[in-house]
Amino acid sequence: MILELCDQSATALRQEILAGHLSARELLGAHIERIALCNPQVNALVTLDLDAAMRQARAADEQQARGEPLGLLHGLPMVHKDCFHTRGMRTTQGSPLFRDHVPTVSSLLVEREQAAGAITLGKSNIPEFCAGSHTVNTVFGATRNPYDLGRSAGGSSGGAAAALACGMAALADGSDMGGSLRNPASFCNVVGLRPSPGRVPQWPTLNPYNALTVVGPMGRTVADVALLLAAMAGPDARDPLSIDQDPARFLGSLERSVAGSRVAFAPTWNGLPTDPAVLRLMLAQVPVLEALGAQVTEACPDFSQADQAFQTLRGVAFELAYGPLADRHPEAFKPAIHWNIAVGRNAGGAEIAQAEKARAALFQQMHGFMQSHDFLIGPVSQVPAFPVEWDHVHEIDGTPMSNYIDWMRSGYYLSLTGLPAISVPCGFTDDGLPVGLQIVGRYREERALLEFAHAFEQAVPCGQHRPPLLAAASLNT
Amino acid sequence: MILELCDQSATALRQEILAGHLSARELLGAHIERIALCNPQVNALVTLDLDAAMRQARAADEQQARGEPLGLLHGLPMVHKDCFHTRGMRTTQGSPLFRDHVPTVSSLLVEREQAAGAITLGKSNIPEFCAGSHTVNTVFGATRNPYDLGRSAGGSSGGAAAALACGMAALADGSDMGGSLRNPASFCNVVGLRPSPGRVPQWPTLNPYNALTVVGPMGRTVADVALLLAAMAGPDARDPLSIDQDPARFLGSLERSVAGSRVAFAPTWNGLPTDPAVLRLMLAQVPVLEALGAQVTEACPDFSQADQAFQTLRGVAFELAYGPLADRHPEAFKPAIHWNIAVGRNAGGAEIAQAEKARAALFQQMHGFMQSHDFLIGPVSQVPAFPVEWDHVHEIDGTPMSNYIDWMRSGYYLSLTGLPAISVPCGFTDDGLPVGLQIVGRYREERALLEFAHAFEQAVPCGQHRPPLLAAASLNT
Repeated sequence: MILELCDQSATALRQEILAGHLSARELLGAHIERIALCNPQVNALVTLDLDAAMRQARAADEQQARGEPLGLLHGLPMVHKDCFHTRGMRTTQGSPLFRDHVPTVSSLLVEREQAAGAITLGKSNIPEFCAGSHTVNTVFGATRNPYDLGRSAGGSSGGAAAALACGMAALADGSDMGGSLRNPASFCNVVGLRPSPGRVPQWPTLNPYNALTVVGPMGRTVADVALLLAAMAGPDARDPLSIDQDPARFLGSLERSVAGSRVAFAPTWNGLPTDPAVLRLMLAQVPVLEALGAQVTEACPDFSQADQAFQTLRGVAFELAYGPLADRHPEAFKPAIHWNIAVGRNAGGAEIAQAEKARAALFQQMHGFMQSHDFLIGPVSQVPAFPVEWDHVHEIDGTPMSNYIDWMRSGYYLSLTGLPAISVPCGFTDDGLPVGLQIVGRYREERALLEFAHAFEQAVPCGQHRPPLLAAASLNT
Repeated sequence: MILELCDQSATALRQEILAGHLSARELLGAHIERIALCNPQVNALVTLDLDAAMRQARAADEQQARGEPLGLLHGLPMVHKDCFHTRGMRTTQGSPLFRDHVPTVSSLLVEREQAAGAITLGKSNIPEFCAGSHTVNTVFGATRNPYDLGRSAGGSSGGAAAALACGMAALADGSDMGGSLRNPASFCNVVGLRPSPGRVPQWPTLNPYNALTVVGPMGRTVADVALLLAAMAGPDARDPLSIDQDPARFLGSLERSVAGSRVAFAPTWNGLPTDPAVLRLMLAQVPVLEALGAQVTEACPDFSQADQAFQTLRGVAFELAYGPLADRHPEAFKPAIHWNIAVGRNAGGAEIAQAEKARAALFQQMHGFMQSHDFLIGPVSQVPAFPVEWDHVHEIDGTPMSNYIDWMRSGYYLSLTGLPAISVPCGFTDDGLPVGLQIVGRYREERALLEFAHAFEQAVPCGQHRPPLLAAASLNT
């Protein structure tokens, strides 16, 4: 088992760099080796510019040597999701239409990460236009799960999650409409936070009032995710939803007693079909939560209006973003996206108004629900990682799925609430596949959510189990 | 001319009360007299509970006598728009369907105003369900303009504006989708601020993600509006758009030199049909602005996509709020609302997505535009107050209007930008009708907008001209 620099947490690596025990160049060198070792097997990173990364690392070391102020992410190697624009670096969106596209400006998120001192390694793989929770596209193929190369890494931030699991990056960014920061984290034994809408401002975007799609941090530990969130968050006048709070609130120790926390526990989100292995792992967390002093009650909000609402709002968002392009290049889009666009186009104003009304009702319901609960907890995903050859999950525990995101209800129900939600590793199936616990916090209370997730992570440190891939790779070297 | 307590600014009255020179009861007594004098003529206040108001005023005086901490609006008599819920007080929404409706909870806005010590006089008149910018409905009839009883008070916060102009209330609240806080202010020679979406959180609402409809303050002076905003604003977890900034930022003197401010001046908003009297008053402000030291350049954003976008998004919002009710009670709705609902229902997903895209593009365009301008200035309304018998404006300067809000483009174009906008009195037509100047500020920068508007108000103090109604009333007593 290789347990070295690349497997440490970003917060630990940051301490080492700031203390002068480790240079950004050394750290980058270790990552370059790790990428060479793992990436050919998992196919998580689809564009790399390691020369540029080395120049950035050298500049970072020089900046530190001169005693200049250092950013929050100083010297930490990271990857950007291939849907985010990176100036001068290919950004394909997983589509053959953008196979050779090189943006001239970066997304605000990437700008902030780089301004905070992160070293850009390259781009992480995604499904075509981030559609679906399985990372495969016709440009780069599939990303494989580091815990079982025959399985999916999840998605749409699948390249990011697999890269983190393999130690090919210290940090990664992602986005989440229906679970895309959480599901790959669950499949790959890492941590993904879906923040509140507006917590991390988005620019450029065609749809700035869309509160369903958010961007956020991924890492190997909860503290790493908090660190990256502190670098990403804070208001920007180009995002009409952006939250006017100082992101420094996410810095500082997450240690806190969570005794007395009132937890609503929803092991199947009110009867969603759930793989028995996932359900067993969910039930196993109750004594863990109770040992932390939490008061666990089985309770779940009413999500009965959520499917129609999400499908309709997603359809309109796809029509908005891709409809005209898909008309011009129908052959370049997978059927699932054509279907999403058709759902949006076929929705009438009354149906769209009804979807907005249902989303509003759910938001209000959650406000009441979270008066008597501090956290809502259930599975991230209804299934563990599935075979990489599948296009998506077609049935769960005997129940057929009617479309390519039907198996993602445990993700998108929570998206629709507008509340922050985090995926934290909670165990492995008998087959050795990771499973994540989804913890949902109160309106805009990411800090409390991170503290609780950190306490849980200390109690169930299964995120420290590196993928068997690394042991095998080690044997081969 | 009656120039007495009721015509003073709310900020001046507040000082008098806090200094112990004036009791809440005395102030209320003066307002009760003024209401008796004016309301029968203008029909601005449609529900009153003056006994309850006197009990509140007595409690306020006792609270002050006991030396308790006093709210920002301590002892100030105010009116609530009849679309806002008032616990225990009739709230009709201007509809016969709610003629006798008495809510059991108050809107958050009303709760905050009362918690800040405001004395509730009653409810201000609106058009049916706030639709349109002319205050008339089948429950209470029309509100008349205090400057010409044969003219409209504007709308939809028309009762509020007329009440302020007559000195029947020290402060008033309102709402604004397409100009409803600004247009009645313009028609009635008072001040109305359309704040940024989320500045004043809304609850309850069927449509919390709707950033087009905002709620905000009205008063006789800019400083009064700032005071009321400070009492209304601040985040609330029941509004997903609410802005996390301390509303204390709106307190304190608004005095500031505005010399050097870069003003984009758009006297017709890029060629909208504009009444010559309004245009003449717009052009007359240029030397005033220049005398304040502003650098005035004629410039206007591109609003060519705004009509389709606004009509479509408004249609969906009407379908959402009123569609099912209108199906059940078609006879209880005016044709204009049936038309709005039909626009929403007939819009397909592609059209709605296109409207969202156009709104997003306008928001981004404004970000660029406001990099080189501090303020954007033009008319509030394309016309002065029109005859009260009209249903709406059918033509402007020879150009026919195609529907009941077509004449309100100067209002709704700015709504669509997401920027804060204020209406400040700037002069009178030859017929003695007030005209307001619309000043638009940067993203979430209401403070800078209020300071600029305050400087303008000092230079053009026409808001101090009380309506001739008061002089006539005085002669009659």
